[in-house]
Amino acid sequence: MDEIITLDYGSGGKKTARLIENSILPALDNPALRALNDGAVIPGAEQLVFSTDSFVVDPVFFPGGDIGKLAVCGTVNDIAMCGGVPKYLSCALILEEGFPMRDLERVLDSMKQASQKAGVQVVTGDTKVVERGRGDKIYINTAGIGFLKYPGLEPAAIRPGDKVLVSGTVGDHGTAVMLARSGMMQGELRSDCAALNGLAEKILSSGAKVRVLRDPTRGGAATTLCEFVEGGALGIELEEAQIPVRGEVKAACELLGLDPLYCANEGKLLCVVAPEDAETALAAMRACPEGENAAVIGTVTENYPGKVTLRTPLGGRRILQKLSGAQLPRIC
Amino acid sequence: MDEIITLDYGSGGKKTARLIENSILPALDNPALRALNDGAVIPGAEQLVFSTDSFVVDPVFFPGGDIGKLAVCGTVNDIAMCGGVPKYLSCALILEEGFPMRDLERVLDSMKQASQKAGVQVVTGDTKVVERGRGDKIYINTAGIGFLKYPGLEPAAIRPGDKVLVSGTVGDHGTAVMLARSGMMQGELRSDCAALNGLAEKILSSGAKVRVLRDPTRGGAATTLCEFVEGGALGIELEEAQIPVRGEVKAACELLGLDPLYCANEGKLLCVVAPEDAETALAAMRACPEGENAAVIGTVTENYPGKVTLRTPLGGRRILQKLSGAQLPRIC
Repeated sequence: MDEIITLDYGSGGKKTARLIENSILPALDNPALRALNDGAVIPGAEQLVFSTDSFVVDPVFFPGGDIGKLAVCGTVNDIAMCGGVPKYLSCALILEEGFPMRDLERVLDSMKQASQKAGVQVVTGDTKVVERGRGDKIYINTAGIGFLKYPGLEPAAIRPGDKVLVSGTVGDHGTAVMLARSGMMQGELRSDCAALNGLAEKILSSGAKVRVLRDPTRGGAATTLCEFVEGGALGIELEEAQIPVRGEVKAACELLGLDPLYCANEGKLLCVVAPEDAETALAAMRACPEGENAAVIGTVTENYPGKVTLRTPLGGRRILQKLSGAQLPRIC
Repeated sequence: MDEIITLDYGSGGKKTARLIENSILPALDNPALRALNDGAVIPGAEQLVFSTDSFVVDPVFFPGGDIGKLAVCGTVNDIAMCGGVPKYLSCALILEEGFPMRDLERVLDSMKQASQKAGVQVVTGDTKVVERGRGDKIYINTAGIGFLKYPGLEPAAIRPGDKVLVSGTVGDHGTAVMLARSGMMQGELRSDCAALNGLAEKILSSGAKVRVLRDPTRGGAATTLCEFVEGGALGIELEEAQIPVRGEVKAACELLGLDPLYCANEGKLLCVVAPEDAETALAAMRACPEGENAAVIGTVTENYPGKVTLRTPLGGRRILQKLSGAQLPRIC
């Protein structure tokens, strides 16, 4: 471990994982936390799902959303990916002295719109103010409570032959925010920031045998898929040609030296389903606006255990690792 | 409303209240949020209590505790004050680039100790890192879930003649942190930072008719008592001579120009009980280490509706207002 915290520890990739494993888990260990899912399924009568995220995105406003929308959708999605029906959110603000009241109201209005759309209520909150230079405009933490409706979604449920699906184009959020930050022209490029609880419900109620759902935020689709198989006996083989990426995202990534597979998404999910149910799941996704560009992008295999490999259109094959370093600091 | 956020909006006093009423509530309104309690009681089968707080205390380590202990105790206490039994916490870290790993581990160890002592588990979390100068070492958000055991604790339950009790000396946390921040000698002065769920359980199971419980953090005891009666037909008459204040706190407050009644507490509660039950409640408190200096400090009255008045030892009487301005920024 390093002696100080560097930006890499917030990447959502390898260093974040190391920090959690070496420092956080040993201190706070218990079975629910150890699952290291985006939300915790709490044992007990009502089978609660509980999740939290702090949002520190820079800039606060970006094409396709803002920190308020992100804070609602992010926590709603974490609960939905655990098979929960999200119901209640908390909202804790850390405001920097000097933040314009008008911007705060715009952010709160976004939270209102996003909450209504996702069918959740913000029921409790907190407001702190820090001096100029001790924060950056606004940081928002949301925690969320949902009720577990679809238990058993976890990487351990994946079987050989299963199909890997993505609900749409990858890399939209990360590239939109990076371009907004750099002040470059954005054209049509927008964050995909959206609540996915409706989409998840559609997939999970379709009858398809779903093994695991996850929204690939920090670290991107590649990091999430690596997490599905790491340390296990199975691997994932992706077909690069099948992975939907917008032309604008490809172009922006080339410009910025990024890889769309490692760019954050805020309105996409990855799901692994039984082979015979891939078409059912795909149809369920495509029936939702959030899933209209859904695609089957890969297969679970006993080759390359613990690894995610990418077959390129030219027939080459490369191994995808988890994100190392902070490709995109403060992307969410 | 001002055009920008100033430190006053984080005081826990009048401006914080105005921000909540004018901006946050209109955007996110619903019955649970509107109760404006420190935690929300969620309607539903299991009667959940849900609460959140972000902690931005400066300095991170202070006599009697640190930001980790505070983050656990603060949320545990908010749930306990709502009549809930706290069970599960989330923990979301916002780390500033350059924060020493050793300090992080010390904070996490404090969280571990405090969680074990309070009987709660941290089941989910999040870690973000911001650039140097965009945060201040470490900010921690905890949200907490508890199960409602003692419903109906609310200011509206207060009746004329009820007694007002405090569980111990006031102002310890605020003055300890201010002295630590100023680098002055602290002598014996320590924060009272402690989990109060055990104490609350003792009071609530004592048989005393308890109307309301609240931990007077930001804004201090005076602001909390004002919140109990504001806008209503009842007032509270306090006896200054009965309010326990440590000699060191008095001295520090004189030095710093503060009033102990407006200084934050992190291990004290105020409770209003039926007149005939004051002795029962007092005995229950004193049986706990956290309540050994408990005292009856006032009476609910129909005089001075909506106001809190303080009778001084010389027989004078002054009206206590809610804290205005930020007496103590970043105290928790």
